[in-house]
Amino acid sequence: MRTPANRCRLLARASLLAFVAMWCLVSLRAAADEGMWTFDNPPLKLLQERYGFTLTQAWLDHVRLASLRLNAGGSGSFVSAHGLVLTNHHVVRGQLQKMSNTQKDYLKDGFYAKTAAEELKYPDLEMNLLQSMENVTAKVLSVVKPGMRDQDALDARKSEIAHIEKESLEQTGLRSNVISLFGGGEYWLYRYKKYTDVRLVFSIEAQAADYGGDPDNFTYPRYNVDMALLRVYENGKPLDSTNYLKWNSNGSADGDVVFVSGNPGSTSRLSTYAELEVKRDNFLPLILELLGRNLKGAEVYSARGSEQARQAAGFIFGMHNIIKGLRGRYDGLLNKNVMAKRQKEEQEFRARVASNPQWQKDYGTAWDEIAQAERKSAARSKQLVFSTLPGRGMRQIALKIVQYVAEVKKPNGKRLDGFHDSELESLRSELLSPAPFYPELEEAVLTENFPFALQQLGSSDPFLNAQLNGKTPEGAIKEMYGGTKIADVAFRKHLLDGGEAAVAAATDSMIVMARRLDPVMRELRKWNEDNVESVETSAEEKLARARFAAYGKSAYPDATFTLRLGFGTVKGYPMNGTQAPPMTTLYGLFDRAESFAGKPPFSLPQRFVERQNRLNLATPVDFVSTCDITGGNSGSPVINRNGEIVGLIFDGNIESLVGDYVYDDTANRAVAVDTAVMTEVLRKLYDASTLADELEGK
Amino acid sequence: MRTPANRCRLLARASLLAFVAMWCLVSLRAAADEGMWTFDNPPLKLLQERYGFTLTQAWLDHVRLASLRLNAGGSGSFVSAHGLVLTNHHVVRGQLQKMSNTQKDYLKDGFYAKTAAEELKYPDLEMNLLQSMENVTAKVLSVVKPGMRDQDALDARKSEIAHIEKESLEQTGLRSNVISLFGGGEYWLYRYKKYTDVRLVFSIEAQAADYGGDPDNFTYPRYNVDMALLRVYENGKPLDSTNYLKWNSNGSADGDVVFVSGNPGSTSRLSTYAELEVKRDNFLPLILELLGRNLKGAEVYSARGSEQARQAAGFIFGMHNIIKGLRGRYDGLLNKNVMAKRQKEEQEFRARVASNPQWQKDYGTAWDEIAQAERKSAARSKQLVFSTLPGRGMRQIALKIVQYVAEVKKPNGKRLDGFHDSELESLRSELLSPAPFYPELEEAVLTENFPFALQQLGSSDPFLNAQLNGKTPEGAIKEMYGGTKIADVAFRKHLLDGGEAAVAAATDSMIVMARRLDPVMRELRKWNEDNVESVETSAEEKLARARFAAYGKSAYPDATFTLRLGFGTVKGYPMNGTQAPPMTTLYGLFDRAESFAGKPPFSLPQRFVERQNRLNLATPVDFVSTCDITGGNSGSPVINRNGEIVGLIFDGNIESLVGDYVYDDTANRAVAVDTAVMTEVLRKLYDASTLADELEGK
Repeated sequence: MRTPANRCRLLARASLLAFVAMWCLVSLRAAADEGMWTFDNPPLKLLQERYGFTLTQAWLDHVRLASLRLNAGGSGSFVSAHGLVLTNHHVVRGQLQKMSNTQKDYLKDGFYAKTAAEELKYPDLEMNLLQSMENVTAKVLSVVKPGMRDQDALDARKSEIAHIEKESLEQTGLRSNVISLFGGGEYWLYRYKKYTDVRLVFSIEAQAADYGGDPDNFTYPRYNVDMALLRVYENGKPLDSTNYLKWNSNGSADGDVVFVSGNPGSTSRLSTYAELEVKRDNFLPLILELLGRNLKGAEVYSARGSEQARQAAGFIFGMHNIIKGLRGRYDGLLNKNVMAKRQKEEQEFRARVASNPQWQKDYGTAWDEIAQAERKSAARSKQLVFSTLPGRGMRQIALKIVQYVAEVKKPNGKRLDGFHDSELESLRSELLSPAPFYPELEEAVLTENFPFALQQLGSSDPFLNAQLNGKTPEGAIKEMYGGTKIADVAFRKHLLDGGEAAVAAATDSMIVMARRLDPVMRELRKWNEDNVESVETSAEEKLARARFAAYGKSAYPDATFTLRLGFGTVKGYPMNGTQAPPMTTLYGLFDRAESFAGKPPFSLPQRFVERQNRLNLATPVDFVSTCDITGGNSGSPVINRNGEIVGLIFDGNIESLVGDYVYDDTANRAVAVDTAVMTEVLRKLYDASTLADELEGK
Repeated sequence: MRTPANRCRLLARASLLAFVAMWCLVSLRAAADEGMWTFDNPPLKLLQERYGFTLTQAWLDHVRLASLRLNAGGSGSFVSAHGLVLTNHHVVRGQLQKMSNTQKDYLKDGFYAKTAAEELKYPDLEMNLLQSMENVTAKVLSVVKPGMRDQDALDARKSEIAHIEKESLEQTGLRSNVISLFGGGEYWLYRYKKYTDVRLVFSIEAQAADYGGDPDNFTYPRYNVDMALLRVYENGKPLDSTNYLKWNSNGSADGDVVFVSGNPGSTSRLSTYAELEVKRDNFLPLILELLGRNLKGAEVYSARGSEQARQAAGFIFGMHNIIKGLRGRYDGLLNKNVMAKRQKEEQEFRARVASNPQWQKDYGTAWDEIAQAERKSAARSKQLVFSTLPGRGMRQIALKIVQYVAEVKKPNGKRLDGFHDSELESLRSELLSPAPFYPELEEAVLTENFPFALQQLGSSDPFLNAQLNGKTPEGAIKEMYGGTKIADVAFRKHLLDGGEAAVAAATDSMIVMARRLDPVMRELRKWNEDNVESVETSAEEKLARARFAAYGKSAYPDATFTLRLGFGTVKGYPMNGTQAPPMTTLYGLFDRAESFAGKPPFSLPQRFVERQNRLNLATPVDFVSTCDITGGNSGSPVINRNGEIVGLIFDGNIESLVGDYVYDDTANRAVAVDTAVMTEVLRKLYDASTLADELEGK
């Protein structure tokens, strides 16, 4: 399945890693059903020409106002007038785990609130609804003066962005983010309505949502009912959600034109060739190996017992998911055809720029500037990789607390990314979430991680030394986790409220470690800003302008975990020497289970076995379409011409992983759960007719 | 599915094409579950070590005497004490078509004889049972004298082989064939009991046998019930077949050790690198293009109406099958890893030979001799390819008649291959078969074929000119087919009985054309014998001896459409980013049908739709095993440790096509129909309980 964007973001943002395209370039040309289009610039002409479909402003507004972004790293949509939201089980998987405990395992057993009173409040799930989009390009760029150094230009832009965001928040009370599109070619102020009272209404068993486990992940044919239903509350009452997608229980059919409205996380469709090479040669292989070590640590822990297995399940699930996804991308970069295509496109673009003396003067140096920055980045790639702290662990939270108390004292425009005024409320709710930690799991992961880090970084690396503190890996882990109360919400609140003084005075082992780590991380971040980020921001802005000049604004920007519209047709594809079907059915679910003699991960939830005879086995389960999606699109609604919901995106096929770099509609497919199977199982397996009635508007 | 070996053989034998390995080399080493073992040299030690299985002589004899070879190009086995034979529907597909007509379409509708009286005699189906094997190497090689020229040695060998075969036939009345194993390293006299009174008992609808059509062909997961049941009669009564395989309706399970006893057609596992290169560069691309043209002609004809579609169905089916199969092999040769592996093996072998001065002197020149012959063959590759006349058409039959009357007058040892005494009975039955011809289909195929031949061969090519006779392709086709009675059995009998005089006097347009063609084909055949076949036979004999010297006789020879034993385990494999299951179930058949909304070739036979509720959908349909098979193995029984039949080979997966050159058990799988589904459908869909009872020994 698709990587929820939060995992990508943790790797991308928190870590400063240059390998994830933070800056995006406009596509040269959109071919076939390609494109993740912003709602201000939808492909009206293309849809008219190819599908005879007239995309009206009313249709667009309706779909946008029914679309949601989840801070858990995915997308969702309103599917009833009473705040009911449909998303993937795997998008809220982490949340379900946080709400579970030794008595109640919502991941394993699923959940259904038969009445409003039984609906279960999430500890820290936030949803954003895109209310408005405003082009602020002129404003942001006005602060960059001719002749400014790259670093100064970067600082000036960041400061102006923080200012715009803060001003907007104060004026509207809405979550306000300035996003960079087209590699800095445009800046837009996106204002979001924020919902924080979100409750769980229905969650299917993980076994049904994640059917086929890691083997089937990112593949097709699939038989997953990867769904969860949540409800948004406002002022203690279900939200009056007038803009919701009408449920169409017929689902989709082969050849149907469909749309996807969601928040694709990131793509690198137009990174320069030099960036791709460094990603391929310096970052991805090492990241894959590191993730493999972390996974191994979690697996060792999981094998210790059933409670350990429950605790580690989410981490292991996530590691498998991200490893398989990154491996697909890595394979894409190792594919000579993909690289040759990208090289050819770049050569054509460069030749076009070179053909105009003024363009050549203004933009022609950009590729070499990026290549030089990439070489610097490659030289420090090991440090950059290891300084990434994926997942919400105790070390990460401690570091964020140490940084928080320092950052909030600074003027808004001078702070580190992630600590601006407009981001503080979400950040505080993350830092003070009552969700549990699993220290022993973290220790087991570090037991694998540290020796590998030592081997790669050597014993004099500051990042590593800040954590080891002169001890062996074993000793350092014992010290870090032996004397900390960081898992205690009250202690965290005490530190945040007490500010720098409280943090400086703390003797908590994890905070002490975080104080040692903080300057190292700041140095690395600063180095990256000065040597890579600022240079590439300027250079990519040049490339963006060069593209506008050479090709016009006829395309879509790379993904930025903001709302986009995709389109395509429901369609099988050539696979394994034959045809993959446009959809699968419940027959296929039972086939796969029987084919593997019911062995995990192909075993069926007990309910499916016991109630099989109630089901219409011809019901479609999952279907594929040519819609162009990526991680972050998980939970996106699939919508028909009439604006009705017919499916729920939960994955891309294995052929789509290369889509990070190149979209090819021969075999790139988005995989969605059909609405038909959702109502079928709600009614027949879960006795949830009330809920099915709400969906079907009965 | 696997290409029935007769198609291979037509391309290989009748055509003189060097690209099919007529001479085989001993394998360097058998790895994993590799090997198509002769029954005189089974892998006793390997089976004992790997599976703890003691292969007894009694087990071997029992299995051999229950195994059959079908002249239709496949394999089969006795499955009851009353001469009942199980084979694939697709093996007897051509026969079913021959027995069908505008009123009765056994291909489409299937067939079931409820009583013995209703069993339907095949026009010309022959079955061979391997009675004995005798090593005649010394005898054959005794005629080759030191210093003999290659051509003379070839003639001497052929003459001696014809003599041995004739003598054996006279002495025993058994079909007697001398086969060359290990590239002439060994010669064996195989004696077969021949059965010619074969009757159709049950044939499933083509739609069920060939479910998924060309797209699913050679792929897996599959849902095909590719079965037919025939009965062998002797003296007008069902054969008393004491050696039959006991039916095990439980079929197979994941991890089971299984065996395959059948007749793999041909492999090129140890052709020299030079041979593979010429096959890759000069033969396969042209053959694929030519077959594509022939297919196009048949498709044009098929589109004219339902009767035309019925007539062309078999040809189109066969073309699709052979094109997909050859394309898989071609892809194998284009695969750099495969070629590198073969090159490395050859280099090691050459180095080993070179390390011993006597070996180097005796065998060291063989590779270069073959390479030189291959260069000559490559230079005439276009002629060799076009002179192949695949399928049983009127042109082919006319040519065989013209050659027959001339050849039978010669001493047995001097005749062309295919016209030796021991082969005459089968040949006459082929030439006098009452099976229908479809002249308009042949004309349509030639309408595509001739212009392509003209373009490739040029207007002065003797093979083409003999057919065109100074006319345009259109005119030549009209002439050839306009004045011929060759479709009339009586006319063919008149010619055969009348001998050379009758043939010389005939004014029949097809015979007149064949008389022009005969000397051209003889010249090409002679040229090929002198320049390629004789040289390579001698050289490959050297290589065979070199292998025995260097590695001993520890392995199996390349396939020769003679009885072999394969072994392996029932096992899924990595596919498409996930796992292919060890087996499929009837659930999956209905899934695939519904997934494609019942569109052909994924539509279900009406009977499956109407009687679905009678079926146990969890019944296994097809399963995969690591057994090493190839074309010709179609219809082979899959046998468990106890010598019971648990499945019926009908195909290899797409990953197995490269097995022509290299076996790799990672993903190379044989695909078989499970016995469980056969009795399930016989009882529940076809009301054929009597037959199911006979199978289950009730």
